[in-house]
Amino acid sequence: MRVIVPYDARDPKTRLAPVLDPEERVAFAAAMCRDTLDGLEAGGYEPEVLATAKPRHEFGVPVSIDDRPLTPAINSVLSGTDEPVGVVVSDLPLLTAESARRVFERDADIVLAPGLGGGTNAIVIRHPEFTVDYHDGSYRSHTALAADVGASTATVDSFRLAVDIDEPGDLTEVLLHGKGQAAQWLRDAGFELVASERGVSASREDS
Amino acid sequence: MRVIVPYDARDPKTRLAPVLDPEERVAFAAAMCRDTLDGLEAGGYEPEVLATAKPRHEFGVPVSIDDRPLTPAINSVLSGTDEPVGVVVSDLPLLTAESARRVFERDADIVLAPGLGGGTNAIVIRHPEFTVDYHDGSYRSHTALAADVGASTATVDSFRLAVDIDEPGDLTEVLLHGKGQAAQWLRDAGFELVASERGVSASREDS
Repeated sequence: MRVIVPYDARDPKTRLAPVLDPEERVAFAAAMCRDTLDGLEAGGYEPEVLATAKPRHEFGVPVSIDDRPLTPAINSVLSGTDEPVGVVVSDLPLLTAESARRVFERDADIVLAPGLGGGTNAIVIRHPEFTVDYHDGSYRSHTALAADVGASTATVDSFRLAVDIDEPGDLTEVLLHGKGQAAQWLRDAGFELVASERGVSASREDS
Repeated sequence: MRVIVPYDARDPKTRLAPVLDPEERVAFAAAMCRDTLDGLEAGGYEPEVLATAKPRHEFGVPVSIDDRPLTPAINSVLSGTDEPVGVVVSDLPLLTAESARRVFERDADIVLAPGLGGGTNAIVIRHPEFTVDYHDGSYRSHTALAADVGASTATVDSFRLAVDIDEPGDLTEVLLHGKGQAAQWLRDAGFELVASERGVSASREDS
Protein backbone atom coordinates (compact mmCIF):
# COMPACT_ATOMS: atom_id res chain seq x y z
CA MET A 1 0.00 0.00 0.00
CA ARG A 2 1.24 3.46 -0.90
CA VAL A 3 0.37 6.14 1.64
CA ILE A 4 0.42 9.66 0.24
CA VAL A 5 0.43 12.79 2.40
CA PRO A 6 -0.28 15.89 0.28
CA TYR A 7 1.49 19.02 1.47
CA ASP A 8 1.13 22.66 0.48
CA ALA A 9 4.71 23.93 0.45
CA ARG A 10 3.82 27.37 -0.86
CA ASP A 11 1.28 29.29 1.20
CA PRO A 12 -0.10 26.83 3.73
CA LYS A 13 -2.90 27.32 6.22
CA THR A 14 -4.10 30.69 4.95
CA ARG A 15 -7.16 30.55 7.21
CA LEU A 16 -4.85 30.70 10.21
CA ALA A 17 -3.65 34.14 9.06
CA PRO A 18 -5.66 35.92 11.81
CA VAL A 19 -3.41 34.31 14.45
CA LEU A 20 -0.18 33.31 12.65
CA ASP A 21 2.02 35.31 10.29
CA PRO A 22 3.18 33.71 6.99
CA GLU A 23 6.47 32.38 8.38
CA GLU A 24 4.68 30.95 11.39
CA ARG A 25 2.13 29.25 9.18
CA VAL A 26 4.91 27.53 7.23
CA ALA A 27 6.56 26.33 10.44
CA PHE A 28 3.30 25.20 12.03
CA ALA A 29 2.21 23.38 8.86
CA ALA A 30 5.54 21.52 8.87
CA ALA A 31 5.08 20.56 12.53
CA MET A 32 1.59 19.23 11.78
CA CYS A 33 2.89 17.31 8.78
CA ARG A 34 5.56 15.70 10.95
CA ASP A 35 2.92 14.68 13.50
CA THR A 36 0.82 13.19 10.72
CA LEU A 37 3.81 11.27 9.36
CA ASP A 38 4.78 10.15 12.88
CA GLY A 39 1.28 8.78 13.46
CA LEU A 40 1.39 6.86 10.20
CA GLU A 41 4.88 5.50 10.84
CA ALA A 42 3.91 4.48 14.37
CA GLY A 43 1.08 2.50 12.80
CA GLY A 44 3.60 0.64 10.64
CA TYR A 45 3.04 2.52 7.38
CA GLU A 46 5.59 4.15 5.09
CA PRO A 47 4.15 7.52 4.10
CA GLU A 48 5.39 9.65 1.21
CA VAL A 49 4.92 13.41 0.99
CA LEU A 50 3.40 14.77 -2.22
CA ALA A 51 4.23 18.47 -2.15
CA THR A 52 3.16 21.36 -4.38
CA ALA A 53 6.76 22.62 -4.37
CA LYS A 54 10.04 21.72 -2.70
CA PRO A 55 9.34 21.89 1.05
CA ARG A 56 11.54 24.13 3.20
CA HIS A 57 11.56 21.51 5.93
CA GLU A 58 12.97 17.98 6.00
CA PHE A 59 10.48 15.22 6.73
CA GLY A 60 12.71 12.14 6.58
CA VAL A 61 10.39 10.40 4.10
CA PRO A 62 10.32 10.32 0.28
CA VAL A 63 9.05 13.60 -1.19
CA SER A 64 7.74 14.08 -4.70
CA ILE A 65 6.61 17.34 -6.27
CA ASP A 66 3.45 17.98 -8.27
CA ASP A 67 2.38 21.59 -8.62
CA ARG A 68 -1.11 20.75 -9.83
CA PRO A 69 -4.18 20.98 -7.59
CA LEU A 70 -4.82 18.06 -5.25
CA THR A 71 -7.40 16.25 -7.37
CA PRO A 72 -5.31 15.78 -10.55
CA ALA A 73 -2.16 15.17 -8.51
CA ILE A 74 -3.76 12.28 -6.59
CA ASN A 75 -5.54 10.87 -9.63
CA SER A 76 -2.19 10.81 -11.39
CA VAL A 77 -0.83 8.65 -8.57
CA LEU A 78 -3.87 6.37 -8.79
CA SER A 79 -3.54 5.88 -12.54
CA GLY A 80 0.14 5.00 -12.18
CA THR A 81 -0.18 2.09 -9.77
CA ASP A 82 -2.08 -1.16 -9.25
CA GLU A 83 -1.42 -1.07 -5.51
CA PRO A 84 -3.95 0.17 -2.98
CA VAL A 85 -3.38 3.85 -2.23
CA GLY A 86 -4.07 5.76 0.97
CA VAL A 87 -4.26 9.53 1.04
CA VAL A 88 -4.05 11.28 4.42
CA VAL A 89 -4.14 15.06 4.73
CA SER A 90 -1.06 16.60 6.34
CA ASP A 91 -2.83 18.61 9.05
CA LEU A 92 -3.82 15.84 11.46
CA PRO A 93 -1.68 16.53 14.54
CA LEU A 94 -3.86 14.25 16.68
CA LEU A 95 -3.26 11.20 14.48
CA THR A 96 -2.07 8.13 16.39
CA ALA A 97 -0.94 4.67 15.37
CA GLU A 98 -4.28 3.27 16.50
CA SER A 99 -6.37 5.79 14.57
CA ALA A 100 -4.24 5.23 11.45
CA ARG A 101 -4.71 1.48 11.72
CA ARG A 102 -8.46 1.87 12.00
CA VAL A 103 -8.39 3.36 8.49
CA PHE A 104 -5.93 1.05 6.81
CA GLU A 105 -7.11 -2.19 8.38
CA ARG A 106 -10.74 -1.57 7.52
CA ASP A 107 -11.92 -3.96 4.84
CA ALA A 108 -13.66 -2.12 1.99
CA ASP A 109 -12.84 -0.97 -1.54
CA ILE A 110 -13.02 2.62 -0.39
CA VAL A 111 -12.43 3.55 3.27
CA LEU A 112 -13.21 7.12 4.28
CA ALA A 113 -12.51 9.23 7.34
CA PRO A 114 -14.54 12.45 7.19
CA GLY A 115 -13.19 15.75 8.43
CA LEU A 116 -15.13 18.43 10.25
CA GLY A 117 -16.96 20.41 7.60
CA GLY A 118 -17.38 17.49 5.23
CA GLY A 119 -13.88 17.05 3.82
CA THR A 120 -12.07 13.75 3.31
CA ASN A 121 -9.23 13.58 5.81
CA ALA A 122 -8.21 10.03 4.96
CA ILE A 123 -9.16 7.70 2.15
CA VAL A 124 -7.98 4.25 1.16
CA ILE A 125 -8.59 3.29 -2.44
CA ARG A 126 -8.63 -0.37 -3.45
CA HIS A 127 -10.73 -0.10 -6.62
CA PRO A 128 -9.21 0.45 -10.08
CA GLU A 129 -11.95 2.71 -11.42
CA PHE A 130 -12.24 5.09 -8.48
CA THR A 131 -10.92 8.63 -8.81
CA VAL A 132 -10.85 11.34 -6.17
CA ASP A 133 -12.51 14.75 -6.30
CA TYR A 134 -11.34 17.04 -3.52
CA HIS A 135 -13.81 19.88 -3.84
CA ASP A 136 -15.95 21.33 -1.04
CA GLY A 137 -17.67 18.65 0.97
CA SER A 138 -15.69 15.87 -0.70
CA TYR A 139 -16.73 13.22 1.84
CA ARG A 140 -20.18 13.04 0.33
CA SER A 141 -18.97 13.12 -3.25
CA HIS A 142 -16.44 10.37 -2.55
CA THR A 143 -19.24 8.21 -1.18
CA ALA A 144 -21.27 8.89 -4.31
CA LEU A 145 -18.31 8.29 -6.64
CA ALA A 146 -17.67 4.95 -4.96
CA ALA A 147 -21.28 3.94 -5.53
CA ASP A 148 -20.98 5.00 -9.19
CA VAL A 149 -18.18 2.50 -9.83
CA GLY A 150 -19.71 -0.26 -7.71
CA ALA A 151 -17.09 -0.02 -4.96
CA SER A 152 -17.89 -0.99 -1.38
CA THR A 153 -17.35 1.76 1.19
CA ALA A 154 -16.68 1.99 4.91
CA THR A 155 -16.46 5.08 7.10
CA VAL A 156 -14.17 5.32 10.11
CA ASP A 157 -15.65 7.13 13.13
CA SER A 158 -12.60 8.90 14.55
CA PHE A 159 -12.26 12.24 16.30
CA ARG A 160 -8.49 12.17 15.77
CA LEU A 161 -8.96 11.80 12.04
CA ALA A 162 -11.83 14.30 11.85
CA VAL A 163 -9.93 17.19 13.42
CA ASP A 164 -7.90 18.77 10.64
CA ILE A 165 -6.49 22.13 11.60
CA ASP A 166 -7.71 24.93 9.35
CA GLU A 167 -9.09 27.71 11.53
CA PRO A 168 -8.02 29.45 14.73
CA GLY A 169 -10.75 27.63 16.67
CA ASP A 170 -9.21 24.28 15.69
CA LEU A 171 -6.02 25.06 17.63
CA THR A 172 -7.94 24.31 20.82
CA GLU A 173 -8.04 20.62 19.96
CA VAL A 174 -4.29 20.55 19.31
CA LEU A 175 -3.59 21.96 22.76
CA LEU A 176 -6.15 19.68 24.40
CA HIS A 177 -5.20 16.38 22.78
CA GLY A 178 -1.95 16.78 20.85
CA LYS A 179 1.24 15.19 22.13
CA GLY A 180 3.51 15.97 19.21
CA GLN A 181 5.38 18.75 17.51
CA ALA A 182 2.37 20.88 16.56
CA ALA A 183 1.18 21.12 20.17
CA GLN A 184 4.72 21.93 21.30
CA TRP A 185 5.08 24.54 18.55
CA LEU A 186 1.88 26.26 19.67
CA ARG A 187 2.98 26.30 23.30
CA ASP A 188 6.39 27.68 22.34
CA ALA A 189 4.61 30.37 20.31
CA GLY A 190 2.65 31.44 23.38
CA PHE A 191 -0.68 29.70 22.84
CA GLU A 192 -2.50 28.32 25.85
CA LEU A 193 -5.95 27.11 26.81
CA VAL A 194 -8.27 29.64 28.42
CA ALA A 195 -11.90 29.35 29.49
CA SER A 196 -14.33 30.40 26.75
CA GLU A 197 -17.94 30.10 25.72
CA ARG A 198 -17.29 26.76 24.01
CA GLY A 199 -15.55 25.38 27.09
CA VAL A 200 -11.88 26.11 26.58
CA SER A 201 -10.15 27.78 23.63
CA ALA A 202 -6.64 28.41 22.40
CA SER A 203 -5.47 31.93 23.07
CA ARG A 204 -2.13 33.61 22.46
CA GLU A 205 -0.29 35.68 25.03
CA ASP A 206 -0.13 39.38 24.18
CA SER A 207 -2.55 38.97 21.29
CA MET B 1 -25.53 -0.23 34.16
CA ARG B 2 -27.59 2.93 34.52
CA VAL B 3 -27.34 5.28 31.53
CA ILE B 4 -28.26 8.89 32.33
CA VAL B 5 -28.98 11.50 29.67
CA PRO B 6 -29.08 14.99 31.23
CA TYR B 7 -31.53 17.35 29.57
CA ASP B 8 -32.06 21.09 29.93
CA ALA B 9 -35.84 21.44 29.84
CA ARG B 10 -35.84 25.17 30.55
CA ASP B 11 -33.80 27.27 28.13
CA PRO B 12 -31.82 24.82 26.02
CA LYS B 13 -29.16 25.57 23.42
CA THR B 14 -28.84 29.28 24.10
CA ARG B 15 -25.78 29.51 21.84
CA LEU B 16 -28.00 28.59 18.89
CA ALA B 17 -30.02 31.79 19.48
CA PRO B 18 -28.44 33.51 16.44
CA VAL B 19 -30.19 31.00 14.15
CA LEU B 20 -33.11 29.56 16.16
CA ASP B 21 -35.78 31.34 18.21
CA PRO B 22 -36.60 30.08 21.74
CA GLU B 23 -39.45 27.79 20.65
CA GLU B 24 -37.30 26.34 17.89
CA ARG B 25 -34.47 25.69 20.31
CA VAL B 26 -36.78 23.72 22.57
CA ALA B 27 -38.04 21.64 19.63
CA PHE B 28 -34.56 21.06 18.19
CA ALA B 29 -33.13 20.12 21.60
CA ALA B 30 -35.91 17.55 21.97
CA ALA B 31 -35.16 16.12 18.50
CA MET B 32 -31.46 15.82 19.40
CA CYS B 33 -32.32 14.17 22.71
CA ARG B 34 -34.49 11.63 20.88
CA ASP B 35 -31.63 10.86 18.48
CA THR B 36 -29.28 10.40 21.43
CA LEU B 37 -31.75 8.08 23.15
CA ASP B 38 -32.35 6.19 19.88
CA GLY B 39 -28.62 5.62 19.46
CA LEU B 40 -28.33 4.31 23.00
CA GLU B 41 -31.38 2.06 22.68
CA ALA B 42 -30.12 0.72 19.34
CA GLY B 43 -26.93 -0.23 21.16
CA GLY B 44 -28.96 -2.25 23.64
CA TYR B 45 -28.93 0.22 26.54
CA GLU B 46 -31.85 1.55 28.58
CA PRO B 47 -31.27 5.28 28.95
CA GLU B 48 -33.05 7.51 31.48
CA VAL B 49 -33.51 11.25 31.06
CA LEU B 50 -32.44 13.45 33.97
CA ALA B 51 -34.14 16.79 33.30
CA THR B 52 -33.83 20.18 34.98
CA ALA B 53 -37.64 20.51 34.85
CA LYS B 54 -40.56 18.58 33.43
CA PRO B 55 -39.86 18.29 29.68
CA ARG B 56 -42.47 19.54 27.24
CA HIS B 57 -41.81 16.56 24.98
CA GLU B 58 -42.33 12.86 25.53
CA PHE B 59 -39.24 10.69 25.23
CA GLY B 60 -40.65 7.24 25.92
CA VAL B 61 -38.03 6.54 28.60
CA PRO B 62 -38.02 7.11 32.38
CA VAL B 63 -37.62 10.80 33.27
CA SER B 64 -36.52 12.16 36.62
CA ILE B 65 -36.25 15.81 37.60
CA ASP B 66 -33.38 17.51 39.39
CA ASP B 67 -33.21 21.28 39.12
CA ARG B 68 -29.65 21.53 40.38
CA PRO B 69 -26.69 22.11 38.07
CA LEU B 70 -25.32 19.09 36.24
CA THR B 71 -22.41 18.33 38.57
CA PRO B 72 -24.39 17.90 41.82
CA ALA B 73 -27.27 16.22 39.98
CA ILE B 74 -24.98 13.52 38.55
CA ASN B 75 -22.98 13.12 41.74
CA SER B 76 -26.26 12.55 43.55
CA VAL B 77 -27.00 9.67 41.15
CA LEU B 78 -23.49 8.26 41.69
CA SER B 79 -23.78 8.35 45.47
CA GLY B 80 -27.12 6.55 45.34
CA THR B 81 -26.06 3.43 43.45
CA ASP B 82 -23.43 0.71 43.43
CA GLU B 83 -24.02 0.01 39.76
CA PRO B 84 -21.79 1.40 37.00
CA VAL B 85 -23.23 4.66 35.65
CA GLY B 86 -22.95 6.09 32.17
CA VAL B 87 -23.67 9.75 31.46
CA VAL B 88 -24.23 10.80 27.85
CA VAL B 89 -25.04 14.39 26.91
CA SER B 90 -28.37 14.86 25.13
CA ASP B 91 -27.08 16.74 22.08
CA LEU B 92 -25.40 13.93 20.14
CA PRO B 93 -27.59 13.56 17.05
CA LEU B 94 -24.88 11.55 15.27
CA LEU B 95 -24.77 8.85 17.96
CA THR B 96 -25.15 5.32 16.62
CA ALA B 97 -25.44 1.90 18.23
CA GLU B 98 -21.83 1.19 17.27
CA SER B 99 -20.43 4.40 18.71
CA ALA B 100 -22.44 3.89 21.91
CA ARG B 101 -21.08 0.35 22.27
CA ARG B 102 -17.53 1.60 21.86
CA VAL B 103 -18.03 3.58 25.06
CA PHE B 104 -19.91 1.07 27.17
CA GLU B 105 -17.94 -2.01 26.12
CA ARG B 106 -14.59 -0.41 26.81
CA ASP B 107 -12.92 -1.96 29.82
CA ALA B 108 -11.73 0.69 32.28
CA ASP B 109 -12.88 2.18 35.57
CA ILE B 110 -13.54 5.49 33.84
CA VAL B 111 -14.26 5.61 30.10
CA LEU B 112 -14.34 9.05 28.50
CA ALA B 113 -15.47 10.37 25.13
CA PRO B 114 -14.27 13.97 24.70
CA GLY B 115 -16.34 16.59 22.95
CA LEU B 116 -15.09 19.32 20.67
CA GLY B 117 -13.81 22.10 22.92
CA GLY B 118 -12.78 19.80 25.74
CA GLY B 119 -16.09 18.77 27.27
CA THR B 120 -17.07 15.27 28.37
CA ASN B 121 -19.73 14.01 25.99
CA ALA B 122 -19.90 10.51 27.44
CA ILE B 123 -18.47 8.99 30.58
CA VAL B 124 -18.79 5.56 32.16
CA ILE B 125 -18.05 5.39 35.86
CA ARG B 126 -17.14 2.07 37.46
CA HIS B 127 -15.23 3.37 40.48
CA PRO B 128 -16.90 4.09 43.85
CA GLU B 129 -14.81 7.15 44.72
CA PHE B 130 -15.05 9.01 41.43
CA THR B 131 -17.20 12.12 41.18
CA VAL B 132 -17.87 14.26 38.14
CA ASP B 133 -17.08 17.94 37.67
CA TYR B 134 -18.71 19.38 34.56
CA HIS B 135 -17.01 22.75 34.35
CA ASP B 136 -15.22 24.17 31.31
CA GLY B 137 -12.87 21.68 29.73
CA SER B 138 -14.14 18.84 31.89
CA TYR B 139 -12.45 16.13 29.81
CA ARG B 140 -9.09 17.04 31.26
CA SER B 141 -10.36 17.43 34.79
CA HIS B 142 -12.14 14.08 34.62
CA THR B 143 -8.88 12.45 33.57
CA ALA B 144 -7.12 14.12 36.51
CA LEU B 145 -9.92 13.22 38.95
CA ALA B 146 -9.69 9.58 37.87
CA ALA B 147 -5.95 9.58 38.54
CA ASP B 148 -6.57 11.14 41.96
CA VAL B 149 -8.71 8.18 43.07
CA GLY B 150 -6.50 5.56 41.40
CA ALA B 151 -9.05 4.70 38.70
CA SER B 152 -7.96 3.35 35.31
CA THR B 153 -9.10 5.43 32.33
CA ALA B 154 -9.74 4.87 28.64
CA THR B 155 -10.64 7.41 25.98
CA VAL B 156 -12.87 6.59 23.02
CA ASP B 157 -11.79 8.16 19.71
CA SER B 158 -15.15 8.89 18.09
CA PHE B 159 -16.24 11.70 15.81
CA ARG B 160 -19.91 10.82 16.43
CA LEU B 161 -19.43 11.20 20.16
CA ALA B 162 -17.26 14.31 19.87
CA VAL B 163 -19.75 16.36 17.87
CA ASP B 164 -22.17 17.85 20.38
CA ILE B 165 -24.32 20.58 18.92
CA ASP B 166 -23.87 23.91 20.65
CA GLU B 167 -23.16 26.54 18.01
CA PRO B 168 -24.55 27.41 14.58
CA GLY B 169 -21.41 26.00 12.92
CA ASP B 170 -22.13 22.60 14.47
CA LEU B 171 -25.37 22.25 12.50
CA THR B 172 -23.26 21.46 9.44
CA GLU B 173 -22.29 18.10 10.90
CA VAL B 174 -25.92 17.24 11.64
CA LEU B 175 -26.88 17.83 8.00
CA LEU B 176 -23.80 16.00 6.72
CA HIS B 177 -23.96 12.89 8.89
CA GLY B 178 -27.26 12.82 10.78
CA LYS B 179 -29.95 10.33 9.85
CA GLY B 180 -32.40 11.00 12.66
CA GLN B 181 -34.91 13.50 13.90
CA ALA B 182 -32.52 16.41 14.42
CA ALA B 183 -31.36 16.33 10.79
CA GLN B 184 -34.95 16.07 9.62
CA TRP B 185 -35.98 18.92 11.90
CA LEU B 186 -33.27 21.16 10.44
CA ARG B 187 -34.27 20.34 6.88
CA ASP B 188 -37.94 20.99 7.67
CA ALA B 189 -36.90 24.33 9.18
CA GLY B 190 -35.20 25.31 5.93
CA PHE B 191 -31.55 24.52 6.70
CA GLU B 192 -29.40 23.15 3.91
CA LEU B 193 -25.73 22.67 3.11
CA VAL B 194 -24.05 25.38 1.05
CA ALA B 195 -20.44 25.79 -0.03
CA SER B 196 -18.40 27.83 2.43
CA GLU B 197 -14.84 28.58 3.45
CA ARG B 198 -14.72 25.52 5.69
CA GLY B 199 -16.00 23.25 2.91
CA VAL B 200 -19.74 23.16 3.38
CA SER B 201 -21.87 24.84 6.03
CA ALA B 202 -25.47 24.80 7.21
CA SER B 203 -27.44 27.78 6.00
CA ARG B 204 -31.09 28.68 6.38
CA GLU B 205 -33.34 29.78 3.54
CA ASP B 206 -34.37 33.43 3.74
CA SER B 207 -32.00 34.09 6.62
